[in-house]
Amino acid sequence: MTEKKDPLFNKIALVGIGLIGSSLARATRKNGLAKEIVACARSQGTRDTAMRLGLVDAIYETPAEAVVDADLVILCTPVSTYDDLACAMAPSLKEGAIVTDVGSVKESVIRDVGPHLPDGIHFVPGHPIAGTEHSGPEAGFAELFEGRWCILTPVPGTNSKALDRITDYWTAMGSMVEIMTAHHHDKVLAITSHLPHLIAYTIVGTATDLEETQQADVVKFSAGGFRDFTRIAASDPIMWRDVFLNNREAVLEMLQRFSEDLSVLQRAVRWGEGDVLEDRFRKTRDIRRGIVDAHQAGTFDAREPDNAQD
Amino acid sequence: MTEKKDPLFNKIALVGIGLIGSSLARATRKNGLAKEIVACARSQGTRDTAMRLGLVDAIYETPAEAVVDADLVILCTPVSTYDDLACAMAPSLKEGAIVTDVGSVKESVIRDVGPHLPDGIHFVPGHPIAGTEHSGPEAGFAELFEGRWCILTPVPGTNSKALDRITDYWTAMGSMVEIMTAHHHDKVLAITSHLPHLIAYTIVGTATDLEETQQADVVKFSAGGFRDFTRIAASDPIMWRDVFLNNREAVLEMLQRFSEDLSVLQRAVRWGEGDVLEDRFRKTRDIRRGIVDAHQAGTFDAREPDNAQD
Ligand SMILES: NC(=O)c1ccc[n+]([C@@H]2O[C@H](COP(=O)([O-])OP(=O)(O)OC[C@H]3O[C@@H](n4cnc5c(N)ncnc54)[C@H](OP(=O)(O)O)[C@@H]3O)[C@@H](O)[C@H]2O)c1
Ligand SMILES: NC(=O)c1ccc[n+]([C@@H]2O[C@H](COP(=O)([O-])OP(=O)(O)OC[C@H]3O[C@@H](n4cnc5c(N)ncnc54)[C@H](OP(=O)(O)O)[C@@H]3O)[C@@H](O)[C@H]2O)c1
Repeated sequence: MTEKKDPLFNKIALVGIGLIGSSLARATRKNGLAKEIVACARSQGTRDTAMRLGLVDAIYETPAEAVVDADLVILCTPVSTYDDLACAMAPSLKEGAIVTDVGSVKESVIRDVGPHLPDGIHFVPGHPIAGTEHSGPEAGFAELFEGRWCILTPVPGTNSKALDRITDYWTAMGSMVEIMTAHHHDKVLAITSHLPHLIAYTIVGTATDLEETQQADVVKFSAGGFRDFTRIAASDPIMWRDVFLNNREAVLEMLQRFSEDLSVLQRAVRWGEGDVLEDRFRKTRDIRRGIVDAHQAGTFDAREPDNAQD
Repeated sequence: MTEKKDPLFNKIALVGIGLIGSSLARATRKNGLAKEIVACARSQGTRDTAMRLGLVDAIYETPAEAVVDADLVILCTPVSTYDDLACAMAPSLKEGAIVTDVGSVKESVIRDVGPHLPDGIHFVPGHPIAGTEHSGPEAGFAELFEGRWCILTPVPGTNSKALDRITDYWTAMGSMVEIMTAHHHDKVLAITSHLPHLIAYTIVGTATDLEETQQADVVKFSAGGFRDFTRIAASDPIMWRDVFLNNREAVLEMLQRFSEDLSVLQRAVRWGEGDVLEDRFRKTRDIRRGIVDAHQAGTFDAREPDNAQD
């Protein structure tokens, strides 16, 4: 940044500092968005790592300590923890503070967090559509949110100034912001994120159940497509358990549709219906093109990291 | 290559020159493995592109023309074409020539090609476990096979010198070679490649069937996991139709196992069984670690191509 501007916030408190929390810390610092960044983490190891990497100005054990005087508080832990954490930090929140989050489901988050927050605190639920399969404070990077969407799901009556400030925050980190209802969010993410993860976990699990000799072959010959599923299925088990426990309806509905479609292809394979197969395989290409054109495809290189940048 | 060695082959003929054929042409040239490389392609466009890119020394319309005097012939077209192509080229094959292929299934290839080949021709079926979702001669690159496995599935009685020469050929292009039966190959690939593609095609198809407004959201928010499935589902429809038509038994068996496992997870989501979910999600991590350790993971960067090499 060349020109000197006042940062958007005086003090940002991150509750949890894993992949997403540490990426926020890095992006906040890189873009000069806060005078002070603090965090809390339950484990000593994470607190030590965060300080060693210089991610934050101070780190605490509890959310109650971290949120003191913060004008922005961001929940960055698995969504099943939100209820307790919101309850624990509520008494220490500064009047007028904004509370937001990054949780991958939104209806349950509003249900769990909202009731704990005292009057005069502004809650703006959010979800950056950006991530990797890695976890913890070392896995984060400042550019994670660049060119990615962040969805905000304010409830009716949300303070519009608070909403604007959160929008500005994500925009300053390079994201595009979209506003929708929590219900719509949970439906869209069921197909774009939750179901893909459930399926990836399933197929990798199916391979894990093969006899041991076959498993060695699965690893060896995974470059035929399987490896991409293992990357997705390497995501954090707790985070994903919580997603499925908290977006049951929408996931089950999409899963039902998926199962029906899979039956059609299964039948076509069984009866050798080449036309049906070809037809179905053809119609998926447009969506890929749309994603590439929208710059949401990421970068895959068939080569290994050592050679990928030759 | 610093020291000057005799190339492994005098003349290599590629029957088909798309992603795999053109990668073979490039890798053959780069590693000095043939004195002359020729190919055939049915369409004028592909023939023009191959010459413009300097992939081959000569290009023909028919396999019968291309294979004349070749000591190695490599079938590089969709497997449903092998029967006709083998029949068409058989009379022109040079006595003692080796015929191999790169098809993604192996039992059906042996069934389709074997009977056409005259005595004195050595058939060594093969399958490089390397590829991308792109097609055509422009999509290939010389390093595609480096560090990847190539599976050879010789039938009993295969000439051992021919097998050795094909092994040397793949090794010289940087591949590791594994020998197994066609039956075993088709079973292993059903889980490591064929089922992942069927599932990816299915889920992208499921998304394609959503109402139009939802589809725009699917593209926008695809970075949550869905985009990786669209990459796999962008592969060539004809190639994949042929794979499923020719590996029916093994694919259906793996699909059955997958469906059972998916039912277990579906039930766990429905009844909120967090322990079952977490447990299943945890056991998939070892396989990912195995693949990364075996250098078969490829490279994914969550950023877009423009920023990925910052
Ligand atoms: N990963 C993604 O791709 C992605 C993308 C978008 C949104 N999200 C959302 O972001 C949130 C965090 O995910 P992440 O990927 O950053 O996870 P992560 O790397 O595993 O980090 C999780 C953080 O939460 C803390 N934590 C875990 N359990 C806790 C508990 N019971 N009490 C207090 N703190 C606890 C951890 O502390 P310790 O290190 O001390 O255990 C760690 O700081 C989740 O809600 C997820 O849905 C994730
Ligand atoms: N793609 C992968 O990831 C991968 C990996 C390992 C093995 N394989 C196997 O490699 C083979 C080729 O795949 P690819 O990815 O290279 O495909 P590709 O890029 O689509 O190229 C296919 C080639 O086959 C020719 N061809 C198609 N239909 C034909 C027909 N009916 N008669 C004559 N020629 C025809 C095409 O000629 P025109 O251009 O003139 O139409 C083109 O030269 C397949 O058997 C596949 O199973 C693929």
